[in-house]
Amino acid sequence: MEYYVAREIVRHAEDSAWAERLRLLGAATVGEGVARTAVMQPRIRPIQTGVAIAGRAVTAICAPGDNLMVHVALQVIQPGDVLVVGSWAPLPNAVLGELLATGFRAHGAAGAVVDGGVRDVQAIRALGFPVWADHVTPLGNTKSQPGWVNAPVVVGGVTVHPGDFVVADDDGVVVIPGGDVAAVLRQAEARREREALARARFARGEFSVDFYHLGPTLEALGVRWRSTP
Amino acid sequence: MEYYVAREIVRHAEDSAWAERLRLLGAATVGEGVARTAVMQPRIRPIQTGVAIAGRAVTAICAPGDNLMVHVALQVIQPGDVLVVGSWAPLPNAVLGELLATGFRAHGAAGAVVDGGVRDVQAIRALGFPVWADHVTPLGNTKSQPGWVNAPVVVGGVTVHPGDFVVADDDGVVVIPGGDVAAVLRQAEARREREALARARFARGEFSVDFYHLGPTLEALGVRWRSTP
Amino acid sequence: MEYYVAREIVRHAEDSAWAERLRLLGAATVGEGVARTAVMQPRIRPIQTGVAIAGRAVTAICAPGDNLMVHVALQVIQPGDVLVVGSWAPLPNAVLGELLATGFRAHGAAGAVVDGGVRDVQAIRALGFPVWADHVTPLGNTKSQPGWVNAPVVVGGVTVHPGDFVVADDDGVVVIPGGDVAAVLRQAEARREREALARARFARGEFSVDFYHLGPTLEALGVRWRSTP
Amino acid sequence: MEYYVAREIVRHAEDSAWAERLRLLGAATVGEGVARTAVMQPRIRPIQTGVAIAGRAVTAICAPGDNLMVHVALQVIQPGDVLVVGSWAPLPNAVLGELLATGFRAHGAAGAVVDGGVRDVQAIRALGFPVWADHVTPLGNTKSQPGWVNAPVVVGGVTVHPGDFVVADDDGVVVIPGGDVAAVLRQAEARREREALARARFARGEFSVDFYHLGPTLEALGVRWRSTP
Amino acid sequence: MEYYVAREIVRHAEDSAWAERLRLLGAATVGEGVARTAVMQPRIRPIQTGVAIAGRAVTAICAPGDNLMVHVALQVIQPGDVLVVGSWAPLPNAVLGELLATGFRAHGAAGAVVDGGVRDVQAIRALGFPVWADHVTPLGNTKSQPGWVNAPVVVGGVTVHPGDFVVADDDGVVVIPGGDVAAVLRQAEARREREALARARFARGEFSVDFYHLGPTLEALGVRWRSTP
Amino acid sequence: MEYYVAREIVRHAEDSAWAERLRLLGAATVGEGVARTAVMQPRIRPIQTGVAIAGRAVTAICAPGDNLMVHVALQVIQPGDVLVVGSWAPLPNAVLGELLATGFRAHGAAGAVVDGGVRDVQAIRALGFPVWADHVTPLGNTKSQPGWVNAPVVVGGVTVHPGDFVVADDDGVVVIPGGDVAAVLRQAEARREREALARARFARGEFSVDFYHLGPTLEALGVRWRSTP
Repeated sequence: MEYYVAREIVRHAEDSAWAERLRLLGAATVGEGVARTAVMQPRIRPIQTGVAIAGRAVTAICAPGDNLMVHVALQVIQPGDVLVVGSWAPLPNAVLGELLATGFRAHGAAGAVVDGGVRDVQAIRALGFPVWADHVTPLGNTKSQPGWVNAPVVVGGVTVHPGDFVVADDDGVVVIPGGDVAAVLRQAEARREREALARARFARGEFSVDFYHLGPTLEALGVRWRSTP
Repeated sequence: MEYYVAREIVRHAEDSAWAERLRLLGAATVGEGVARTAVMQPRIRPIQTGVAIAGRAVTAICAPGDNLMVHVALQVIQPGDVLVVGSWAPLPNAVLGELLATGFRAHGAAGAVVDGGVRDVQAIRALGFPVWADHVTPLGNTKSQPGWVNAPVVVGGVTVHPGDFVVADDDGVVVIPGGDVAAVLRQAEARREREALARARFARGEFSVDFYHLGPTLEALGVRWRSTP
Repeated sequence: MEYYVAREIVRHAEDSAWAERLRLLGAATVGEGVARTAVMQPRIRPIQTGVAIAGRAVTAICAPGDNLMVHVALQVIQPGDVLVVGSWAPLPNAVLGELLATGFRAHGAAGAVVDGGVRDVQAIRALGFPVWADHVTPLGNTKSQPGWVNAPVVVGGVTVHPGDFVVADDDGVVVIPGGDVAAVLRQAEARREREALARARFARGEFSVDFYHLGPTLEALGVRWRSTP
Repeated sequence: MEYYVAREIVRHAEDSAWAERLRLLGAATVGEGVARTAVMQPRIRPIQTGVAIAGRAVTAICAPGDNLMVHVALQVIQPGDVLVVGSWAPLPNAVLGELLATGFRAHGAAGAVVDGGVRDVQAIRALGFPVWADHVTPLGNTKSQPGWVNAPVVVGGVTVHPGDFVVADDDGVVVIPGGDVAAVLRQAEARREREALARARFARGEFSVDFYHLGPTLEALGVRWRSTP
Repeated sequence: MEYYVAREIVRHAEDSAWAERLRLLGAATVGEGVARTAVMQPRIRPIQTGVAIAGRAVTAICAPGDNLMVHVALQVIQPGDVLVVGSWAPLPNAVLGELLATGFRAHGAAGAVVDGGVRDVQAIRALGFPVWADHVTPLGNTKSQPGWVNAPVVVGGVTVHPGDFVVADDDGVVVIPGGDVAAVLRQAEARREREALARARFARGEFSVDFYHLGPTLEALGVRWRSTP
Repeated sequence: MEYYVAREIVRHAEDSAWAERLRLLGAATVGEGVARTAVMQPRIRPIQTGVAIAGRAVTAICAPGDNLMVHVALQVIQPGDVLVVGSWAPLPNAVLGELLATGFRAHGAAGAVVDGGVRDVQAIRALGFPVWADHVTPLGNTKSQPGWVNAPVVVGGVTVHPGDFVVADDDGVVVIPGGDVAAVLRQAEARREREALARARFARGEFSVDFYHLGPTLEALGVRWRSTP
């Protein structure tokens, strides 16, 4: 059980282009193109509305009640990265507040995803630093407990490896393994086109059972039609 | 255990007039006029603010992870109806997103109440389709599992029969048995008048203990007055 | 087990000045200056955004399902006080709605903190009466069960004594023992100054590990640096 | 919203024979033969081990904190019946303790299922009165709040109508609509026979994928075999 | 926010006699004689069955993840005392295991109540040291964080002051203010006698509605009798 | 998102010797020698008492409501392995019952750890097949949804890779990366010796503050001694 800080994550020349395309697709559309084990539990909620982000994960693992390793993560974060914070037990404390948010924003971080608490949410919204968290609390931290920066961590029920892409918006948070981005983008952008067609048809009143040819499925499953409940 | 879709629910000539009166009363006032077993648990929350709806329930029962029966419900919904979705276990997936919301809106549905997840919440708010749900998540669905449309279902801890009236606003969701609407409306509208009087008096500083004559109750219960804690 | 209503709490000539200073500091900054056992659990959330309050606690203890003692608390509340409501078990009902909020506002209460439900939230927001609560629900109350006014009560996991100061904002709720306010204010205001300095430095890109001299801590804890995950 | 006590439930000459057959089948086997909406949530747990019961439901609906209607249910219970207790909100109190258990046992009740608390669990186990409940607590009750006896109620997430059959054992609780018992018994007893065959084969090492012919399903679903993770 | 250890709690010559009488009464009977705010939430469960204890509370407040203050509490515990451990946030770790249980038993402690985790439960049961806790977990502790011994603490939702009496058995945990023991004992022992009478009558089939004269209450509440559901 | 079954996990000649040594150490002692991120959440509980197991993990990932992939896992399990089952969302259903337990036992599996439900618990205990699970429920499964066998999975909040060692007993479940077993065993066995010494000393009344030299820590943290609370 050695505690460590890994300075580097794997990056790619197209990272910022990929991040922008993922951001525009959004968590739900991207989520269809990855394994279902990649969608975080819904308790990880945005503290703002109408904001979407995407970027490489820089992870921090803190002891419950402490946020020392978040301070360390600030030293390795690069522009466009997403800070991802977890623990081995619930983090009741606010591991991120206005001061740290100011620092991460100054270093160009795209936002933060925290399996624990955050505070100063009014100030953080005013700063324009997007955050997803388990809860909001005034509870402070010690800065005295060891942990890890850029180790794999379970956040919102999902394993996040350093360098994975994180996509977060009003629907929640999705994680994409670092090596799968190009394939996921292709699938998700194709899906977005099909959805545009479906939306247009549904808006005109076409039934989705017809559009998706679900009639045979219903019949095979033995679902009967009758007139009254 | 036969799976079925019932095409029709019991309706009444005055449905749209009743719905409008219930909508204006709101969930809390209507809730006082029905059995307490008719108020959904508070975990069923609106995804928008400042919106109230009322209408007949069209119910769908889905398998966890699936939303096939919501697609089927679109085929039987009528203008003014409220889609009500439940299961026999937690529904972790988003059974409703932008595409289905577009469809239900095109067919005139008043809104939806989901004991499970929804997604594309920014787009659904933009559409103006009101939704109450247990949670928000990007997690998708299969469309391959049987269930029921217009069978009784437990949603938010309340039994909903197809054709019951549903009233939902920022306070939550209340269910009225289909045959009780006229009586409930009478009681609730009378109550609203009494409340207007109370509000005026309380705004001028009158004590509610005096307004409701609670002094004798307190004395009978043995509640003593003293000067300090 | 005697039920009682205590008419008076301990007050101080500087109460309104103290309340204003606490309000401007906010829950997170004040929370650093008091024992950690004074920060309420994050499930106690504001029903509005962007509002901060502070004031002496007037407490009410209700039976689950009942709000008689909240009506009684209206008779002893003074301008600037904060109503604090709890129970010996979860309060599923809405112990506070538009009518009572109108009354408390008419008597000058600064706001309310409820370890239970509230309703009529749209109307209460419109009134401008700030409320923090465990949940929102249309579920009503009986007015027939005894309890206490101005007895100690556990709310959000924190013991609140009548006359304690309560500070609440978007981050949550903090409680200050009545006798500690002057000392807490000194500490918290000094802290606010130090934080202003930190914020300015972090905004320019200075690392918090350097600002707080955390390097020796990390070394003592055996946290190693390496290049890759 | 009228409170009532219904003296009678629908019974059948074969009730005790049916109950014994259901009891021997157990909750899991019976649960396969009924709609999945009939299985209670797992939070309803037995307070003893190794006991199975089955019988007609006599229902009581209590206010949170009160158990008056359980006392009334004692007046209508018949030998072999199962007491089923619920509410419109969590029941934090122990609605059943040694005294009431003594009474229900004296009147021949088969056991009790409580969506709330129970107490005196050591004494109740010693009495031999089987109980399933949400939790155990010393918290007492008032006997002053109205409710219903033999009205439909949601318990453990399932709608229970008076006269439904309840089957409960170490696995949990299942509910069978009163009119479906004969058909459910046929299905479940046939299933038990098939399971005996499966058990014998599996004990000898036969693969369940072969026994249930799941190979084609796996192939149709696109599940690939490979040598390493 | 000063951290401290208070060496002494208030004791009384009759402590061991009182403790034995409380222990024989049990949590449920004692719980009826104290304020309802004195009954812990049901999530605090025994790790053994069939054991009852009572004694003065020695309290420890630990940081989440740490148990340093439990080690300190061992230095002030006296024979017959009950260790009561809490925090300002969930304690995910096992603050008590076989080693500390061995120590507390060697010093004559009656048992422990923990609003957090415990471990080595097989060994602790074998030792015969009774424990009530929120959960069981292998998760270990640091021994490096400050806190308090013999300060007031919220455990299981109840405020415990050092020197309060704690009564715990299979039903859960009840707290009695130090100064109220004599009065509580009188009430609870009288109650136990009345209950013996009730039990004898209920065992012979007498209805509790008659025994407690609940008929007039039911009539006053408007509960109607009818023949069918 | 390709679904797959991996036939093989990495094994080692000493596996059965390692497993036996880990089993004798138990989850709590082993847990001290691995990263804290390796201890499962306490909601994963044993369905029996007094049993400890250890072995290589064979993992299965099922859709909520389905257990097809558990049937497939039976085809690749080897004697001494531990079945570990998870999902991308809560598994409300009983993915394991008497029939599958019979099969896994026939193939020599050491036991199972399930982040979901199990059933037939009486029969499984009688079989002597040890199981740890999130809950017990009669709720059945479909066998129609794809997933993975021997893919990494999050169970009880911990990432489990196929071939990791799992240690489970009455305290809960701990996971050891496959390559770390030898080092973990050395540390944990040394720790067990030190603990034997501590236990002997604590049983004679020695204070743990002295044994662990915690006095300087307390002084450095500013914890003061005083006589009364």
